[in-house]
Amino acid sequence: MARRPQEAVLHRGEALKNLPLILITMGDPTGVGPEVVAKALLREEVYEWCRPLVVGDKGVFERIIQELDLPLEVTEGEGGRGKLPLLPVGELPPLPWGRPQREAGEAAYRYILKAVELIERGEAQAMVTGPVSKEAIQMAGYPFSGHTELLAQLSHTEEYVMMLAGPRLRVSLVTIHIPLSQVPSAISKERVLKCIEVTERGLKEDFGIASPRLAVAALNPHGGEGGLFGEEEEREIGPAVREAQEKGIEVQGPFPADSLFHEALSGGWDAVVAMYHDQGLIPLKMLHFRDGVNVTLGLPFVRTSVDHGTAFPIAGKGVADPTSMYAAIQMAAQILTHSSG
Amino acid sequence: MARRPQEAVLHRGEALKNLPLILITMGDPTGVGPEVVAKALLREEVYEWCRPLVVGDKGVFERIIQELDLPLEVTEGEGGRGKLPLLPVGELPPLPWGRPQREAGEAAYRYILKAVELIERGEAQAMVTGPVSKEAIQMAGYPFSGHTELLAQLSHTEEYVMMLAGPRLRVSLVTIHIPLSQVPSAISKERVLKCIEVTERGLKEDFGIASPRLAVAALNPHGGEGGLFGEEEEREIGPAVREAQEKGIEVQGPFPADSLFHEALSGGWDAVVAMYHDQGLIPLKMLHFRDGVNVTLGLPFVRTSVDHGTAFPIAGKGVADPTSMYAAIQMAAQILTHSSG
Repeated sequence: MARRPQEAVLHRGEALKNLPLILITMGDPTGVGPEVVAKALLREEVYEWCRPLVVGDKGVFERIIQELDLPLEVTEGEGGRGKLPLLPVGELPPLPWGRPQREAGEAAYRYILKAVELIERGEAQAMVTGPVSKEAIQMAGYPFSGHTELLAQLSHTEEYVMMLAGPRLRVSLVTIHIPLSQVPSAISKERVLKCIEVTERGLKEDFGIASPRLAVAALNPHGGEGGLFGEEEEREIGPAVREAQEKGIEVQGPFPADSLFHEALSGGWDAVVAMYHDQGLIPLKMLHFRDGVNVTLGLPFVRTSVDHGTAFPIAGKGVADPTSMYAAIQMAAQILTHSSG
Repeated sequence: MARRPQEAVLHRGEALKNLPLILITMGDPTGVGPEVVAKALLREEVYEWCRPLVVGDKGVFERIIQELDLPLEVTEGEGGRGKLPLLPVGELPPLPWGRPQREAGEAAYRYILKAVELIERGEAQAMVTGPVSKEAIQMAGYPFSGHTELLAQLSHTEEYVMMLAGPRLRVSLVTIHIPLSQVPSAISKERVLKCIEVTERGLKEDFGIASPRLAVAALNPHGGEGGLFGEEEEREIGPAVREAQEKGIEVQGPFPADSLFHEALSGGWDAVVAMYHDQGLIPLKMLHFRDGVNVTLGLPFVRTSVDHGTAFPIAGKGVADPTSMYAAIQMAAQILTHSSG
């Protein structure tokens, strides 16, 4: 079999530096993904942490660079400062900014597949994902509820956890992208316990915390108030916490969620296990709207992501903030350091 | 009918000052209520805002004052600085601190009834409530899910809203003290619309905001993501927002809750309408753990409250923070100013 072009590309600069190669998927071509990737790569520190390689579309980046007048030049394969190092996948026609489109969804999906493929072949060490549009990917015909779920499926991972992390707060989610009406029935002792275990392992292995301490949020107002406002605490969450404790995990709860997140700020816990998406993301985004990072624990490879969406209304306008993308690249590099250390 | 003792008490100092008489219920006798009431009354500004009168138990306050060595003296009826002006209701035996007890629940419940009775007779202008134990009140045989619901029932109020307010954020709740599993089915267009309307009216009449601007939170993750993660946004919440707009209310939404509360911080909205207890209280308590106030909108009288519970684990230890009680008294006085202005 002929050597594939991207392999030549990948290997070109590999011997030069001992840094990990981190793939960055561009995300939806018509969202803010391309812009935050390009802007994050303007910051020189990135090249002290890793060798970045963007998986995406050349035309889109050339357009962004020109329109925003960024001091970058797209180069195929790895590149140093001043370059936007690209592994091109496909070639898109010009698309209007800021709305779900089939072609864009198809492309965004293929960037993810390509990144996973390269990582599984050992050609790259981690992936950082740009924001995609679920709607666009579904228009392209793929069942898709989120990166986290797709990556778990592609890597045949059963026990994975979506964590959102910032300097002041880390939150793990027991349930992720489901309607709120389906949350209570999805809260089982087994799922809560699994989330506690994967979170604890992730904190040890990925974040380098020797003895992680976890707090678990309740599901119901006032933590169920002794059964008056719900029984999941007594029936599922409490038993999961006790079983985790018996396994030697330093975990406490369930605590009423409204005061827990306030208390989590004064330290003491390395992560909070939340029962559903908004329960964890409301406090996380209040603290880390700009610099929060989404990290998937439990996968066989390192994956971080921006914690924001495609932000269609501001796509192509030059006002997107690359802080979360920058922090996601940094966190991926840090996790690789801990994992290999 | 003989003149009742409390009437004599109430009328004693009434002519002296033109300030409103505000009743403060002590809350559960074995929680932090008595302590935060006593400590709040140490602050002299209280007497510039109102004439406070505490509804509670004499023995409990004498014990707190002695144990914490507070420069206060219990006096029956109104009193100035250095006094704890008390309207005694019943007489409790000494009870252990910090746990739900039938006698304590019975007493806490009667303080509330007494305060409502006096207000309805026109003897006082507002009530500020100390924290009660739902469990203790239920042990005493009363169905009770919260002050808000009880006060609405006692005053035959159909359209009421629980709002949590601090200097940086105000949140109204569409549903309050119900299990999370019951929230989705309780989110109807009618309820959301009612909450928007009562909130807008409250902001105008109670907070003196001429043209209030409201934001409405979504129920599901990502605001339902176009129906992928739930349909309540399209079916109930969106239509309620549009109908409110047609009625001339400045309201927008539904917005994904995780970014909404971050955005609410940069101003622009006078209140956020949240769909359920923790959705509103998580962000509120992160910002206003100490100085948040619970206010009931829509009642025929002014009612504010601490935004914390009985805090049984620290009751009687002298470490309770009176900031929320102090802020609740202040807010009740401010609302009276706006209402009468």
